[in-house]
Amino acid sequence: MTDPLRLGIAGLGTVGTGVVKIVRQKAELLAARAGRPVAITAVSARTRDKDRGVNLSDYAWEDDPVALATRDDVDVFVELMGGSDGPAKAATEAAIAAGKDVVTANKAMLAHHGQALAKAAESAGSVLRFEAAVAGGIPVIKALTEGLAGNDITRVMGVMNGTCNYILTRMQATGQGYNALFEEADKLGYLEADPNLDVGGIDAGHKLALLSSIAFGTQVNFDAVELEGIQSVTLEDISHAADMGYRIKLLGVAQLTGRGLEQRMSPCLVPASSPLGQLEGGTNMVVLEGDMVEQIVLRGPGAGEGPTASAVMADVMDIARGIRLSTFGQPATELQQAKPARAATPAPYYLRMSLEDKPGALAKVATVLGEAGISINRMRQYRHDDTTAPVLIVTHKTTRTALDGALDAMTKLDVIASAPVALRIETV
Amino acid sequence: MTDPLRLGIAGLGTVGTGVVKIVRQKAELLAARAGRPVAITAVSARTRDKDRGVNLSDYAWEDDPVALATRDDVDVFVELMGGSDGPAKAATEAAIAAGKDVVTANKAMLAHHGQALAKAAESAGSVLRFEAAVAGGIPVIKALTEGLAGNDITRVMGVMNGTCNYILTRMQATGQGYNALFEEADKLGYLEADPNLDVGGIDAGHKLALLSSIAFGTQVNFDAVELEGIQSVTLEDISHAADMGYRIKLLGVAQLTGRGLEQRMSPCLVPASSPLGQLEGGTNMVVLEGDMVEQIVLRGPGAGEGPTASAVMADVMDIARGIRLSTFGQPATELQQAKPARAATPAPYYLRMSLEDKPGALAKVATVLGEAGISINRMRQYRHDDTTAPVLIVTHKTTRTALDGALDAMTKLDVIASAPVALRIETV
Repeated sequence: MTDPLRLGIAGLGTVGTGVVKIVRQKAELLAARAGRPVAITAVSARTRDKDRGVNLSDYAWEDDPVALATRDDVDVFVELMGGSDGPAKAATEAAIAAGKDVVTANKAMLAHHGQALAKAAESAGSVLRFEAAVAGGIPVIKALTEGLAGNDITRVMGVMNGTCNYILTRMQATGQGYNALFEEADKLGYLEADPNLDVGGIDAGHKLALLSSIAFGTQVNFDAVELEGIQSVTLEDISHAADMGYRIKLLGVAQLTGRGLEQRMSPCLVPASSPLGQLEGGTNMVVLEGDMVEQIVLRGPGAGEGPTASAVMADVMDIARGIRLSTFGQPATELQQAKPARAATPAPYYLRMSLEDKPGALAKVATVLGEAGISINRMRQYRHDDTTAPVLIVTHKTTRTALDGALDAMTKLDVIASAPVALRIETV
Repeated sequence: MTDPLRLGIAGLGTVGTGVVKIVRQKAELLAARAGRPVAITAVSARTRDKDRGVNLSDYAWEDDPVALATRDDVDVFVELMGGSDGPAKAATEAAIAAGKDVVTANKAMLAHHGQALAKAAESAGSVLRFEAAVAGGIPVIKALTEGLAGNDITRVMGVMNGTCNYILTRMQATGQGYNALFEEADKLGYLEADPNLDVGGIDAGHKLALLSSIAFGTQVNFDAVELEGIQSVTLEDISHAADMGYRIKLLGVAQLTGRGLEQRMSPCLVPASSPLGQLEGGTNMVVLEGDMVEQIVLRGPGAGEGPTASAVMADVMDIARGIRLSTFGQPATELQQAKPARAATPAPYYLRMSLEDKPGALAKVATVLGEAGISINRMRQYRHDDTTAPVLIVTHKTTRTALDGALDAMTKLDVIASAPVALRIETV
């Protein structure tokens, strides 16, 4: 039998524990599939004395992940600590410098340092893989890098933060507002320590930046992702959207056009009957569009011990099988620097605002839109009992630039009671 | 630059032409992704003089696919002729014997000879891959073999014949019967030359047998697939199912349990709100369930030039990148021979029958079910104007064996006007 592939695992939280369980419980299956055994030689975590429900006594212990990453008896450094910098980055760099392969679930680290790390790995002859960093158990990195390798990718979309989708679909189902459901999600342990990573769209934005890079052969550029969280989505938005046959999702969209690379992560309206519109709860969905394949939709659990550990093991098994791919599907040195294009692709928009109940108020708003060259598809004023009237407008296709100009002019009108909210309607 | 990977393509129908277009039009992209150029050196088809809309003048021509498969200037034999035996098999065998790698879209050939061909390829050191044989553009072979390599697969399900799904969803949408929509599908060119391959479930059964093999590490056993076509599904079944919140799909299900390997391809009821229930038209969907990953759903075009050529290119690009996997995810010599288990997993069933309008008719049917140990969940007798009454019954969970006993006893009753139809209700 061939030599085992030896793993050193840093980080023994949910995912790390899941990986240990798989390697221990499925030794025979993994060996049959990989053609060689997969074994753990050493582990590292912040706290040693803690019952994790798995037997770690067979493995060497390292307090320092850097020491773990560079051990002679480790072939693959499995980084499951998290955090964009600090120990995760230091240990990953050390592993690469020592010629180890690296498997990580760390989207924040790769979104910020993916280009540099991939370059370092490639010049060291190491492999750096990250299936578990995007959309949990869904093998989307593999689908995009390998399964669609014969396509020019035209668009990538995804609902990739389960917590946001949970909050949004529960708002629709229960009629409770954002704040109540934020509390509920928090009680259920669905939120990151810094909840803005979830509801601010940052976590999902990291994932989008990684997918963009593979899809379009461009350098990871998280800073160019237009981020908008779900905090300003109201129950009224959700019910207005539903009335018109839409659902609101925190949707990531990446497109490379003549205008540059668009990367947006923001609440959008999508058709209620589309796969994205039908996605409920914490499940993730990624839509991959290519010139040959048309559209592939992948759906699955975006988090959790089993699914995320499954994705980590996909990378480990690739390495065990001798599959050695570039981190982003082609050498990091050949990835292009794409010009960021802010929401350049025109789309219809949903606008919600509150107007003073004065004669001519609606006309003033309509005039502003007309002057910006934006035509109105539908407009509704809702029944109201106080001095301000809720109004919603669906525009025909327009650019975000034209829209921003109009929104700016609107807020200066004396009839606007609260700043208008604009949500893009994405064709899927 | 590294040496190009040289393809010899046999079969220049829709898919073959699509592959030629990709290789010609995306030379730079493919080379960047693979790290080496991908080129075509020779082609073969039944007719040479035919305008296929692509320029073939750069390639050597072979009338005989076996000659093509064994050319010195061919590294990968791309088999797109189809047919389980004959030239496709002869040329594939010749290619393997000559040490070539093989990429094929031929589900029939692999369903019948996959085990022998995989064994031959592996002992020759060749790679034999078939992403395009299952579910068109969806990279499901890759997802299962590699993406879920850390899982014990618990169940695989799929709607993998677009023509059947087209007919069934059009029956629901238009209220037209099976025969009318069969004609419509035929006019649209959706049917195979032998339409029984589609509507009899054979084509989809081939695909299921291939997925089973990878999922469970078992030898391909198409003969053990329980096949039932959609010909006996009536408009009444579709509308009764809809009334109860279900849709009818030609659904493939494979499960390995203590009772053995179940492989079924048959019309089933699935919840209307599930991803499978929501699947309309010619689109394919595969559901992969594993102990770690829970459930992954993949959706995409199951046929057509672009999508199928995209899948062929996924295999070609893997080979160009040096990825060399066993055909069924582990060496063919190690695949188990699983005992076939006929629909052993209990399920609820939908039964439709026509009873003579006589006193006590329903009671007799209910008694037969009770004697077989099958309890009734719901029973409806529909309004009728003639001497026979349509009746439908939904049972609680039962085994197919118990059900078959009851159906047999029922047909002997003097109150049964037409043989009962039974459709499984699949939990998804």
